[in-house]
Amino acid sequence: MIDTPSLVDQYCHGVLRTELGLGTFEAHLGRGEGPPAPGTTFFDTQTGFAVRRWCPPLLDLEPHCPAPHYLARRRELGVVEAGRRLLRGSGITAYLVDTGLPDDLTGPAELGAAGGASAHEIVRLELLAEQVADTSGTVESFLGNLAESVHGAASTAVAFTSVAGERHGLALAPEPPDAGEVRGAAGRWLAARQVGGELTDPVLLRHLLWIAVASGLPLQLHSGASNPQDYLTRFARATAGLGTDLVLMHGYPYHRHAAHLAGVFPHVYADVGPALVRTGARATALLAEILELVPFGKLLFSSGARGLPELHVVAARLFQEALGRVLGGWVAEGAWSRSDADRVAAMIAAGNARRVYGLAAS
Amino acid sequence: MIDTPSLVDQYCHGVLRTELGLGTFEAHLGRGEGPPAPGTTFFDTQTGFAVRRWCPPLLDLEPHCPAPHYLARRRELGVVEAGRRLLRGSGITAYLVDTGLPDDLTGPAELGAAGGASAHEIVRLELLAEQVADTSGTVESFLGNLAESVHGAASTAVAFTSVAGERHGLALAPEPPDAGEVRGAAGRWLAARQVGGELTDPVLLRHLLWIAVASGLPLQLHSGASNPQDYLTRFARATAGLGTDLVLMHGYPYHRHAAHLAGVFPHVYADVGPALVRTGARATALLAEILELVPFGKLLFSSGARGLPELHVVAARLFQEALGRVLGGWVAEGAWSRSDADRVAAMIAAGNARRVYGLAAS
Amino acid sequence: MIDTPSLVDQYCHGVLRTELGLGTFEAHLGRGEGPPAPGTTFFDTQTGFAVRRWCPPLLDLEPHCPAPHYLARRRELGVVEAGRRLLRGSGITAYLVDTGLPDDLTGPAELGAAGGASAHEIVRLELLAEQVADTSGTVESFLGNLAESVHGAASTAVAFTSVAGERHGLALAPEPPDAGEVRGAAGRWLAARQVGGELTDPVLLRHLLWIAVASGLPLQLHSGASNPQDYLTRFARATAGLGTDLVLMHGYPYHRHAAHLAGVFPHVYADVGPALVRTGARATALLAEILELVPFGKLLFSSGARGLPELHVVAARLFQEALGRVLGGWVAEGAWSRSDADRVAAMIAAGNARRVYGLAAS
Repeated sequence: MIDTPSLVDQYCHGVLRTELGLGTFEAHLGRGEGPPAPGTTFFDTQTGFAVRRWCPPLLDLEPHCPAPHYLARRRELGVVEAGRRLLRGSGITAYLVDTGLPDDLTGPAELGAAGGASAHEIVRLELLAEQVADTSGTVESFLGNLAESVHGAASTAVAFTSVAGERHGLALAPEPPDAGEVRGAAGRWLAARQVGGELTDPVLLRHLLWIAVASGLPLQLHSGASNPQDYLTRFARATAGLGTDLVLMHGYPYHRHAAHLAGVFPHVYADVGPALVRTGARATALLAEILELVPFGKLLFSSGARGLPELHVVAARLFQEALGRVLGGWVAEGAWSRSDADRVAAMIAAGNARRVYGLAAS
Repeated sequence: MIDTPSLVDQYCHGVLRTELGLGTFEAHLGRGEGPPAPGTTFFDTQTGFAVRRWCPPLLDLEPHCPAPHYLARRRELGVVEAGRRLLRGSGITAYLVDTGLPDDLTGPAELGAAGGASAHEIVRLELLAEQVADTSGTVESFLGNLAESVHGAASTAVAFTSVAGERHGLALAPEPPDAGEVRGAAGRWLAARQVGGELTDPVLLRHLLWIAVASGLPLQLHSGASNPQDYLTRFARATAGLGTDLVLMHGYPYHRHAAHLAGVFPHVYADVGPALVRTGARATALLAEILELVPFGKLLFSSGARGLPELHVVAARLFQEALGRVLGGWVAEGAWSRSDADRVAAMIAAGNARRVYGLAAS
Repeated sequence: MIDTPSLVDQYCHGVLRTELGLGTFEAHLGRGEGPPAPGTTFFDTQTGFAVRRWCPPLLDLEPHCPAPHYLARRRELGVVEAGRRLLRGSGITAYLVDTGLPDDLTGPAELGAAGGASAHEIVRLELLAEQVADTSGTVESFLGNLAESVHGAASTAVAFTSVAGERHGLALAPEPPDAGEVRGAAGRWLAARQVGGELTDPVLLRHLLWIAVASGLPLQLHSGASNPQDYLTRFARATAGLGTDLVLMHGYPYHRHAAHLAGVFPHVYADVGPALVRTGARATALLAEILELVPFGKLLFSSGARGLPELHVVAARLFQEALGRVLGGWVAEGAWSRSDADRVAAMIAAGNARRVYGLAAS
């Protein structure tokens, strides 16, 4: 058996503070644009089955018990106690938390306390810019405040995270826009914008990315389910040698491409975790595919969990089980040595993240 | 063992009525633009090996017997008797038959009678439009007759099927064209067209798709081997909430993308079957990949078989074996419960298709 | 067990003649744009682990011994003796060698002698054109000399190889350029060029490809890690029926697409080997994926090795092990017959390459 005693979750969100019924819980298992189709339920997915496999025992129930039983027990314990049991049962000892969602979720301190773990903040660039826009009167003050906010965030956060790729379909130019373009785009955006309005302007998204690159903090790039290769290759080339690491998030079904880029560029890293949560019983196969091309010092575990502590649990358990099976299988057939396997497991589970984000060893 | 006693084949064609020699049989195993390369044969493919594995026993021969022996026995029994034995040995109890091919193949009634199964018609939109064009004198009569034909077909068929994606490389605009564009395109097409001429005009292909969407009948979309994601995402978004289901056909090697879309959009479904026939001994691996992201209520079995009843057999047997191995394996390792596995197997084999196409339970 | 006694390596380079230290050896394990990231090493990759698994026993060490031990032993034996032992332990009996790299590597005769194998030359088109340009004074003499050089090379080499796809991102037009375009492009390139300058002009790259197609010699097409499908489909269609075979090289992670194209076009072939070297312990899974769609007479083994004889060894051993496991597994579960498996193994290991390149049987 390969041991992975301690996990660093390099990207997640907090959990909901409210009690959940069957329907509200189910809604957090979906990942789509709408409710389940008539005659179907989001419980009938790999994620739903994985939740029913791993979580009931942490609340004193049998694995695979019916969802209504599980939710009744969860409410009986209360959201706080159920959350504590789940998070402490996950094996995660450090959370890096993206605080840039509109949902009312627990923040890093509250999540860490519930889970008996350390916790660190990841700042989402687009929300930061929207918040700065809400309080800036002019283009000049907006741009000045933005630079100052990113600079300030860099002194307390462990990473920046960007959803520019998701918002603009990976068609962004890889270079930084020039000052005139930025002022023009800022002026148009501020003039047309309501308070709370979302940032989708490509020039400002690029400007934000490059302010973040200049900060030197690791930058996480989300790209949804589009083929990220062309854009990310060009952006990686444009940022090579600047001293800032890029972490490619959520690559499925392009996880092999992300692993490839992590092998090509010294400052590029790949993520694993959300793909495992989505694919459940197939997590072992997915992890094996990622481990084809990624250098072993370039892969980082994360859960991507949001709202439900069940998702932190499922990510961690699937990851540990998959890592044990994949690496253990290679040891059994003689392809890897046992000591190499233990060493690589510790790197992916925690060591790589500690090094990239400058976290203290646990 | 996971049981899947009854299969609904949600997409296939009829079979040839003529006796076949080695060369004519082999030609139906290829999937390409031309004959086999010098020094090679289409029997040396996964499909060829799968036919030699599964079909000889249904004609009283040993599995893997040489192809000439198999074909001699097939001719000895005669095409009718051989077809009856093969189709009845497939385990398929309902066929949904695309009747829109130029080949002289058995229709739904004849296929169902030979196979001891029920059979239903799927109408291919592009052939319907070409037939209407053959008998319409003016643009106005063509467009009127087209709407009437689609409407009429919707009352007898169980689904529409479209090869617009294959004919126009998935570069179609997702929105319906406006009436002026449609009249213009129809005028140009009819003026230039010979009787029997193929429909490839993108405006008319889009017009056809949207007439079909308006009918409310499930619409099957074929996309060949191109990456369907961008186009299908936009078309799915454009048709969301209209009450018409879309079934994504033949996704390999983009089956994971199709499964992803079925998870994102409530009205989108994914297909499995032809990918299994093409990949033979790898069918188990393929099915497992599809089952990563597809919600279990969103996947439908089909054979995609055309011309040879052997292909219906191979699709059904490979599917049943793969389903048993994949789901049975997950039960064995504790990832799924046995009752969930049985339930999901019945959904993918038949239940989902019965619900989507409104078929009576067998 | 499936036997593959003799391997034809349809694409490789020679090996270095100099002694290597830990750092210079490690540099040849990377495949990227830069050194390993801080805190990481290229030894911690599937390729690095595979080298440590397969090569130490050929130099009298234990598998998985530490890299410094291995390199000390390698220097103790000397680069010539170590190279002899490694190459002769690989199981490769014929090398097809791309001589078009600037590195100082052993040529075909020297590689063959060291490995106790036959060796044949592959001519890289782009280098040939650059060499012709270095010695041609005018556009007319350049174009004349180029045609003559390609023609001459065709009489001694077994294949041409082209990196046009890597240099121009697979956005090349599939048709041959016309004579006026070629003269214009040649004039501009020669006027702007320094001696040794690289050929990246798309018109001249296309012109070169079409001169090679006219020679009738098999043409190997490299496409890096971009999705080659659109370009290669169009180029395959443009060259269909001309009598020249195309061999698609290095497809990962698009190996399934390459296998698909080999199934669609009679004159298109697919390559396996470099993908196995890169993915190491996953070689079995990769080979299985390639064998989904490729007709078994259309797949050819190669190592893609460059500089280190260790890479020839790893490619050969991973391939033989993977082939044994994949085909042996299918025999064990009844999907394939034993005689079919042995026959297909011999085809992929050597027979297909002998037929395509017109090599004598060993």
